Amino acid sequence: MKRTLGTCYYPEHWPEEIWQEDARRMADAGLTWVRIGEFSWSKIEPTPGVLHWDWLDRAIDVLGAAGLKVVLGTPTATPPRWMIDKHPDMLAVDADGNPRKFGSRRHYCFSHLGYRDESHRITRMMAQRYGQNPHVAAWQTDNEYGCHDTVISYSNAARDGFRLWLADRYGDIDTLNTAWGNIFWSMEYRSFDEVDLPNLTVTEPNPAHMQDFRRYSSDMVVRFNKVQVAEIAAASSAPISHNYMGRVTEFDHFKLGKDLQIATWDSYPLGFLEDRVGADAAHQRAYARQGDPDFQAFHHDLYRAVGRGRWWVMEQQPGPVNWAPYNPSPLPGMVRLWTWEAFAHGAEAVCYFRWRQAPFAQEQLHAGLLRPDSEDAPAMAEAQQVATELADAPDVQPAQAPVALVFDYDADWAWTTQPHGVGLSYFGLVFEHYKALRRAGISVDIVPPNHTDFTGYQLIFAPGVMHLPDALRSALSGAEGHVCYGPRTGARDAGFKIPVPLPPALDGLDVTVTRLESLRPDMPVALKDGGAVTGYLEELETTAPMLLETQDGAPVLVGDAAQSYCGAWLDATGLDRLVALLAEMASVPILTLPEGVRTRRTATEEFWFNHTDQQVDTPAGTLPPAGITRRPL
Amino acid sequence: MKRTLGTCYYPEHWPEEIWQEDARRMADAGLTWVRIGEFSWSKIEPTPGVLHWDWLDRAIDVLGAAGLKVVLGTPTATPPRWMIDKHPDMLAVDADGNPRKFGSRRHYCFSHLGYRDESHRITRMMAQRYGQNPHVAAWQTDNEYGCHDTVISYSNAARDGFRLWLADRYGDIDTLNTAWGNIFWSMEYRSFDEVDLPNLTVTEPNPAHMQDFRRYSSDMVVRFNKVQVAEIAAASSAPISHNYMGRVTEFDHFKLGKDLQIATWDSYPLGFLEDRVGADAAHQRAYARQGDPDFQAFHHDLYRAVGRGRWWVMEQQPGPVNWAPYNPSPLPGMVRLWTWEAFAHGAEAVCYFRWRQAPFAQEQLHAGLLRPDSEDAPAMAEAQQVATELADAPDVQPAQAPVALVFDYDADWAWTTQPHGVGLSYFGLVFEHYKALRRAGISVDIVPPNHTDFTGYQLIFAPGVMHLPDALRSALSGAEGHVCYGPRTGARDAGFKIPVPLPPALDGLDVTVTRLESLRPDMPVALKDGGAVTGYLEELETTAPMLLETQDGAPVLVGDAAQSYCGAWLDATGLDRLVALLAEMASVPILTLPEGVRTRRTATEEFWFNHTDQQVDTPAGTLPPAGITRRPL
Amino acid sequence: MKRTLGTCYYPEHWPEEIWQEDARRMADAGLTWVRIGEFSWSKIEPTPGVLHWDWLDRAIDVLGAAGLKVVLGTPTATPPRWMIDKHPDMLAVDADGNPRKFGSRRHYCFSHLGYRDESHRITRMMAQRYGQNPHVAAWQTDNEYGCHDTVISYSNAARDGFRLWLADRYGDIDTLNTAWGNIFWSMEYRSFDEVDLPNLTVTEPNPAHMQDFRRYSSDMVVRFNKVQVAEIAAASSAPISHNYMGRVTEFDHFKLGKDLQIATWDSYPLGFLEDRVGADAAHQRAYARQGDPDFQAFHHDLYRAVGRGRWWVMEQQPGPVNWAPYNPSPLPGMVRLWTWEAFAHGAEAVCYFRWRQAPFAQEQLHAGLLRPDSEDAPAMAEAQQVATELADAPDVQPAQAPVALVFDYDADWAWTTQPHGVGLSYFGLVFEHYKALRRAGISVDIVPPNHTDFTGYQLIFAPGVMHLPDALRSALSGAEGHVCYGPRTGARDAGFKIPVPLPPALDGLDVTVTRLESLRPDMPVALKDGGAVTGYLEELETTAPMLLETQDGAPVLVGDAAQSYCGAWLDATGLDRLVALLAEMASVPILTLPEGVRTRRTATEEFWFNHTDQQVDTPAGTLPPAGITRRPL
Ligand SMILES: [Zn+2]
Ligand SMILES: [Zn+2]
Ligand SMILES: [Zn+2]
Repeated sequence: MKRTLGTCYYPEHWPEEIWQEDARRMADAGLTWVRIGEFSWSKIEPTPGVLHWDWLDRAIDVLGAAGLKVVLGTPTATPPRWMIDKHPDMLAVDADGNPRKFGSRRHYCFSHLGYRDESHRITRMMAQRYGQNPHVAAWQTDNEYGCHDTVISYSNAARDGFRLWLADRYGDIDTLNTAWGNIFWSMEYRSFDEVDLPNLTVTEPNPAHMQDFRRYSSDMVVRFNKVQVAEIAAASSAPISHNYMGRVTEFDHFKLGKDLQIATWDSYPLGFLEDRVGADAAHQRAYARQGDPDFQAFHHDLYRAVGRGRWWVMEQQPGPVNWAPYNPSPLPGMVRLWTWEAFAHGAEAVCYFRWRQAPFAQEQLHAGLLRPDSEDAPAMAEAQQVATELADAPDVQPAQAPVALVFDYDADWAWTTQPHGVGLSYFGLVFEHYKALRRAGISVDIVPPNHTDFTGYQLIFAPGVMHLPDALRSALSGAEGHVCYGPRTGARDAGFKIPVPLPPALDGLDVTVTRLESLRPDMPVALKDGGAVTGYLEELETTAPMLLETQDGAPVLVGDAAQSYCGAWLDATGLDRLVALLAEMASVPILTLPEGVRTRRTATEEFWFNHTDQQVDTPAGTLPPAGITRRPL
Repeated sequence: MKRTLGTCYYPEHWPEEIWQEDARRMADAGLTWVRIGEFSWSKIEPTPGVLHWDWLDRAIDVLGAAGLKVVLGTPTATPPRWMIDKHPDMLAVDADGNPRKFGSRRHYCFSHLGYRDESHRITRMMAQRYGQNPHVAAWQTDNEYGCHDTVISYSNAARDGFRLWLADRYGDIDTLNTAWGNIFWSMEYRSFDEVDLPNLTVTEPNPAHMQDFRRYSSDMVVRFNKVQVAEIAAASSAPISHNYMGRVTEFDHFKLGKDLQIATWDSYPLGFLEDRVGADAAHQRAYARQGDPDFQAFHHDLYRAVGRGRWWVMEQQPGPVNWAPYNPSPLPGMVRLWTWEAFAHGAEAVCYFRWRQAPFAQEQLHAGLLRPDSEDAPAMAEAQQVATELADAPDVQPAQAPVALVFDYDADWAWTTQPHGVGLSYFGLVFEHYKALRRAGISVDIVPPNHTDFTGYQLIFAPGVMHLPDALRSALSGAEGHVCYGPRTGARDAGFKIPVPLPPALDGLDVTVTRLESLRPDMPVALKDGGAVTGYLEELETTAPMLLETQDGAPVLVGDAAQSYCGAWLDATGLDRLVALLAEMASVPILTLPEGVRTRRTATEEFWFNHTDQQVDTPAGTLPPAGITRRPL
Repeated sequence: MKRTLGTCYYPEHWPEEIWQEDARRMADAGLTWVRIGEFSWSKIEPTPGVLHWDWLDRAIDVLGAAGLKVVLGTPTATPPRWMIDKHPDMLAVDADGNPRKFGSRRHYCFSHLGYRDESHRITRMMAQRYGQNPHVAAWQTDNEYGCHDTVISYSNAARDGFRLWLADRYGDIDTLNTAWGNIFWSMEYRSFDEVDLPNLTVTEPNPAHMQDFRRYSSDMVVRFNKVQVAEIAAASSAPISHNYMGRVTEFDHFKLGKDLQIATWDSYPLGFLEDRVGADAAHQRAYARQGDPDFQAFHHDLYRAVGRGRWWVMEQQPGPVNWAPYNPSPLPGMVRLWTWEAFAHGAEAVCYFRWRQAPFAQEQLHAGLLRPDSEDAPAMAEAQQVATELADAPDVQPAQAPVALVFDYDADWAWTTQPHGVGLSYFGLVFEHYKALRRAGISVDIVPPNHTDFTGYQLIFAPGVMHLPDALRSALSGAEGHVCYGPRTGARDAGFKIPVPLPPALDGLDVTVTRLESLRPDMPVALKDGGAVTGYLEELETTAPMLLETQDGAPVLVGDAAQSYCGAWLDATGLDRLVALLAEMASVPILTLPEGVRTRRTATEEFWFNHTDQQVDTPAGTLPPAGITRRPL
């Protein structure tokens, strides 16, 4: 499939007179795709039951006539004001018990049945009207599920739904009481109707209670999306996508992705570095205009897995955004770099958000390809350059990487439910493994926890997967590559209990976690020969060979050629050593890359990226700031 | 008018037996004014409709008989407990939806019609009883409007009032939808009755929605005050004042001030430095016992403008206060310095808060001129010294300063609504300009945004006035002095949209802000030849001469002899350069003052103040710590 | 009385088949005591009125048969879920007005009469069933009153109870208005029914209002406990205890303790250092695996006073806990050290919490003596070592210390109500005095504010006792030892007013606090000859001899051989100087101990403890990390 570009457009924001000129300029810039519609419900249905499709018909016609392909979004992220009068209890409720009111977007609770029906209704009408439209070449459901912390809702609808979900999962209340260990503080229920939501408890709720509520909440997102997908698929053969948001982990993207044909995500490198990467101030300063050198790549690899090979960047940052604590301009060249990086990781398309900067409302300080006065913004030239460069570039060709890294949303919730130490997060743990692999020049495949065929992987990492499902446990145990487990891998059963025999209870590797501790950030435990444990450390009882140990001789990484277990959260130096050691064992070649330089291989090409604002010498030659090299293998 | 001193007194707090002795000591200390009454509603009307004026009659008599002039305050900041039973919904509501309960003060919502009527009623009775009293020489409405964050209320009364206000402003709902850009996220309303308050939204509300709610909230304060003023003016010819609180910017002090004869403010230099100046720790440490050297002066100049020349300090800190995070004692001499500084800026009177430290209730650790045991507190001697010094001092003589600085409350709300970067505030921006002017030894007039006659000003600054009203735009454009605009000046239309052509769209100066960014505090952008941009930077498209530029050669300050535009938030060194450069252009002489030394000129005198705790050599001679020099011009 | 060990056990958490083996292993390990029952209400009464005692009968039998003595806890900290349906308004309410819901523990409001009756009912049944059981050798009421911030509740039940309590205390509403100074801001009430709770006020409530609400809230805890004690005492002659929690000061432990025979407390040295000691980061780092060297000792001495000589550690941390920000493992040897330290301070028993780590629910990461798989955890060996060492140790022999330190809960509330400066707390002040005494090698007795016989004490400290009751004032004034008062001692009358004549108004010492200030942490005021004032400083008017002064010559500590007054919060060096100076005056010998080394004397023994992770030379010989020396006197 050809690599393509696109943009996000809001015809309803602009006078109809300029649509045609906009469309022409998009096509001239080399764009293929234009996403529309996803916030336009009040324009489509200004009054309940009164549908205005004409403007959308015309918008699609104009865009299609210019040779553009339309991605049509369902408008369910922004129900109109009248919807709240119709369903006053459809609003999500925050942890303090306050309703999350109308006035921005995503003002609905996924558990609310009335709103689910409304979402069903508008989707059906839209699908039936445009399902056979020749210009509608793809679909998007809703917009950024979970953005603005909208997965978890403590509403009455959620409470009622959770009780049914529990009844379905556990069958009878005694089974639930036993699974959760409710005897602990006399928390036993006599019926499912007694179960309340785990907010506003005097001290922390039972982690099993919280974890199941997180699972339920994720399932509600999947259920909500499934209704839309079914209606669209019934009316259209165009692929269906959803645009996931970076580091939104409150619902299971893999489970939702199973119902889609294409996974897309919204990539805001500078905004993310400021508000969610979690780096220290020096790193944030050094990359303030470039973004973290691994954060986007991680998501690219993640959504390649979520989309089973088919994925896009649906929203690509083209300049300063409006929503981070600080909103700098990108270093010249970064918009091009980000775009090529997505292609290097296998993207089919990259769409810039947004076509023209809006002069009004919440995102009026969010840059577009055009300025509010319709002049080209700086990103336009970089987009056009990529469009030109794409002309002689090969098609998207997925290739399996030598290394697999398991990513499990259930584990992310488990660490959030029970971090044990401040700041310990599953996403952070996996991401730090990913960064170490990238620093070693290794291309990585991210795989879901229900992955069972690890053929071809020389090295597999499964850190922090707190509950290791039987199928994954057995697939990893039978993998031909080396498998590295831990820390905390297999630490809980499905009901959030510590299993006995104690974790990780691996076949063929004698290692038991007998005690574990979390550590202050200022008390690293040094490793012999370099690096340190930070934040989290397990005591291992083991007869296995010691691969890494503390200066006091306590085992940290133990294992053999087939598998290993790491009982610690290692710092960057420690992770570099772990990666080097296991890569050598598994015959995966590694590199030592200059700071901020990254490389990625597809089946046919090798890419080099300079994420720094300085010129750097790399094995692939000297790269200017924000420089890229692409060469055939 | 003669410069005078006064104090704030609460006869209702003390046994009637000591009133006469108190009054005698006030007069002996050289005080002219005594403010009373503003918290005494429960003493006046202990039960609804049962009025006890007798004690107040006697208190005024006693004070008047001692030769003191009374400032009589309406008691509406402290409605009695029974009022809440009568109007349970009169309480303000916080952003989380909780009522702000009885038990301290300011427990009312400005939008509540029932409470407005009660305020009307008590004011009318008070005005009619004391309007012709020979000792009542001035009035005060309420107390510190807006203190304790009381302007904005998310009550039902506010919601209802806001809808009417919007209907009045916009006429029909489509006009509002268009002005706000509600199409953006399907936020369109079908009627004004659908508009809710902008709190508890899922993510940020529309900035236009928030900005209009701030404007509405300010208008309610003005409306509330107007009712009192009308009643008092109908019964009394004594001047009417209100005591504004430092850095309370949530309502428009100019608009409210139009209804008053005298503006007064409450000056707590040490408390302010701890809780609202916003200085860094080193500065807070260095001035912990003196207060910021510019913060009081800024407010003096502001209230001179608010009062159209007539202004007082109604509450002057005389020792440690009780309400800041830390409450140190002033350096000896500072109470005198603060008092003289107010006179240097044109104050008619300075009143010390309070006469005697109260041994009970919330402010029991707030110093007075007397200790709780009626002995003199340390401030008494300094007040008496000022009284003596005033004997041979000239009268208050207003004089126009060479430099004007626009201060616009609407702009302050706009920056609060949309700071774009953490910590960027309009007040902060204007205050940093003010400090730079003061470091250069320049006396400054602050002017309101409806000022249209800039005759006599050699240099005019209008930084950050996000919406530039037509009249101001045209007045500045026609000013004879040099006008310096920006950053963000003229960046929004009246409805909070980015205008096209893009800002600032100045007549006769070719400069366009094509992109803007906010910056982490740790990533200043250096200026060529010294200083830096911090926090906020615009990209300027311009053919105008470049007056300041970045090290990379990007324009920062551009302009000619008549006007200039600064597209950046400059650090202190940068602002000093900007001031020096424009002052030279405008032929305003400047000085280089030692750290912490400030000077101010009136029509007839020059004052020098040493705000440090060290002896300092100044052009006006050597000043001891907290030293003052005053000399005729 | 023989020193003994024990543990906390939850038979309801485990299959009945393993009880006997558990009991056998407890006895084999040398344990005497086993506490059970305190969280088991839902097991005892799964449905209202249906009582299941059989399992508890059998558990007590099994434990007793193994030779163990049972401490039986009432289960009122964990009412079952059905209780909430019966009494929906029994939940406590937080300061924002939200109910604190079911789902963990301590979900009840002490003011709720319905729940008090339920607590009465279950206690009566339990007392009557087991009051004569030969194995039940002691009782515990509820569990950790006040833990999780549960003393203060803003419920309707609390509001109603508070009104009655006020009516009882003040008799008529005018007396209350006068005592609180409600005239201040027209806060006067016309009847007790108008008094509301002091939360959600616009700015701070009247401190007198808050202080009385704290006193009321404390009284409710005492009342709640009294009901249980009466029922147990009616049915059993075994001693009754409660397990207090470290640094929970919201209720008066002395008042509650009067109704008990034994005071116990729950000692979690590592958790406390992380979440409540309040030390700086360097100290937290240095003692992360050992705990603060004084925090446990302080509580030991406190509960020796609360229990009038009879006290235990009911829960001793045996490994990492689950609830602190960071949860490290103890240094090897510390479990033994903590145990012996308790005995050195006079404990009768030390019980490890818990027997076996639970694999489920909230505390699944809280270590026990056994791992979840029933293997010995590391603490087991240390417990067994202590058991062995106890064999030849003498009995518990209380001995009066040479120095007394007053601890007053009412003063703690007063400082919390009115700290005057951020971070100033009464507990912190007293604890820093205690640390200085310990650094000087001095054994200390903590005494309650109703202590009147100070015979035998050479030196008595009463810092920060803001309201000095008449009896204490007179007892101190007549004490034979030197009494050191201040800062803030005697600063308020019983109704939270500043008394006149001004504080401290001591008999025989001419000193008056004429002004006071709080200081930023970065502006210490240096003492002449070393040390400094930090955070809080009083101006003293005095003719008494100056014992410590500032570098500017202002008096800080003044006094004579009989008594002294310190008008400042001193840093560690300053407190060391104060202690040395007064100890010399009072002929109390002092030592200079190495960092982290502490010593304590009983009537017959001297103990030395090394709290560091390094070997240290001490006057009692070289101690290894976590080392102990015990020698007869
Ligand atoms: Zn987006
Ligand atoms: Zn005031
Ligand atoms: Zn406990």
